[in-house]
Amino acid sequence: MDKTSLFTLTYGLFIAGVEENDKMNGCIINTAVQSTSDPVQMSVTMMKENLTTQLIKKKGSMTISVLSLDCPLDIIQSFGMKSGRNCSKFEGIEHKVDGNSNPYLEKNTLAYMSLNVSSVLDIGSHYLFICDVVEAEKTGKGQPMTYADYRALKSGKTVSKTNDEPSNDKTTYICTVCHYVYDGEIPFDELPDDWTCPVCNKPKSVFLAES
Amino acid sequence: MDKTSLFTLTYGLFIAGVEENDKMNGCIINTAVQSTSDPVQMSVTMMKENLTTQLIKKKGSMTISVLSLDCPLDIIQSFGMKSGRNCSKFEGIEHKVDGNSNPYLEKNTLAYMSLNVSSVLDIGSHYLFICDVVEAEKTGKGQPMTYADYRALKSGKTVSKTNDEPSNDKTTYICTVCHYVYDGEIPFDELPDDWTCPVCNKPKSVFLAES
Repeated sequence: MDKTSLFTLTYGLFIAGVEENDKMNGCIINTAVQSTSDPVQMSVTMMKENLTTQLIKKKGSMTISVLSLDCPLDIIQSFGMKSGRNCSKFEGIEHKVDGNSNPYLEKNTLAYMSLNVSSVLDIGSHYLFICDVVEAEKTGKGQPMTYADYRALKSGKTVSKTNDEPSNDKTTYICTVCHYVYDGEIPFDELPDDWTCPVCNKPKSVFLAES
Repeated sequence: MDKTSLFTLTYGLFIAGVEENDKMNGCIINTAVQSTSDPVQMSVTMMKENLTTQLIKKKGSMTISVLSLDCPLDIIQSFGMKSGRNCSKFEGIEHKVDGNSNPYLEKNTLAYMSLNVSSVLDIGSHYLFICDVVEAEKTGKGQPMTYADYRALKSGKTVSKTNDEPSNDKTTYICTVCHYVYDGEIPFDELPDDWTCPVCNKPKSVFLAES
């Protein structure tokens, strides 16, 4: 099996947000899809280890903010790279709250959805949340940020939608567990063997090269 | 709730393929995502009514062909618009078969995955298949066809990945049940009230305008 072939699957980029017991938290996710239209349901896959996931499971609701292509990388990275265990993720981030008091972003987004979890499937390292969509509104115009756009932006490649190959042939190293894209100064191959993913702490061996 | 805000979610475009009792069948889907990486699992959402879905549920396995941006519209439409109840979907379509004898496309694709269904969740109009990925290989280079690309191509808009608005402001009408994009000659507003979706037969009222 060529695990890098899985990188050809297309995803959007979203912030899952929740407020539980006066703590607001959020994290970057890429697997949020509409699963039925009558009633409107979405399914969302999230790593069990994430604090946001645990708060969502406890509360039974969440928001999804759909990031737009103009979303600054530092917003994505502050939600994707830090743990809410050590900081307040929404501090300094302009946000509103939905009917469940869960936070969502209005700026740098195209839409938000307010979800009530109807069932939770344990699929190993992740939970799959099946949710009823109770609110859904547009927040901006433009194009969505896709997961491919995010990887391209991080590795300095041009975001262009053509049949041409990417304009820069730099190899990108991606954590297959949490999808963190390595962007350190030291070449990936030269990192020490005991180096671990700064986001999920998994070993260097779970990274795959994508060129 | 603004249901068109759900159109901001990003999806790829895939052909789900299956062979059951000597009948090969396939259909276009847009919700196939990797849900865990160790072990490699994918989740796939499919309309219960589709013959392909019923064959997959019976057999317990399927393929996913990841369509590339250069995939001709007629291939997409022949898998998306016809029912395998009246024709042989893979006739005249170059394909290979995986270890389960399920068909997949090598041309106009970036990769294929061979899936064994481990559990089936009934979520109303659709089944959500949780699957083990047993084979996965690249089949081509280039960019994936996204669901947004497909809608843009069908409505004659330019496929471009910029923050600009689409180059053509034609309104697109999309079936919220099966995601068929209306492309008839008669303006959508002038279709008779008893007109139904040519793919899923749902009434005109389930269509939403996207501009």
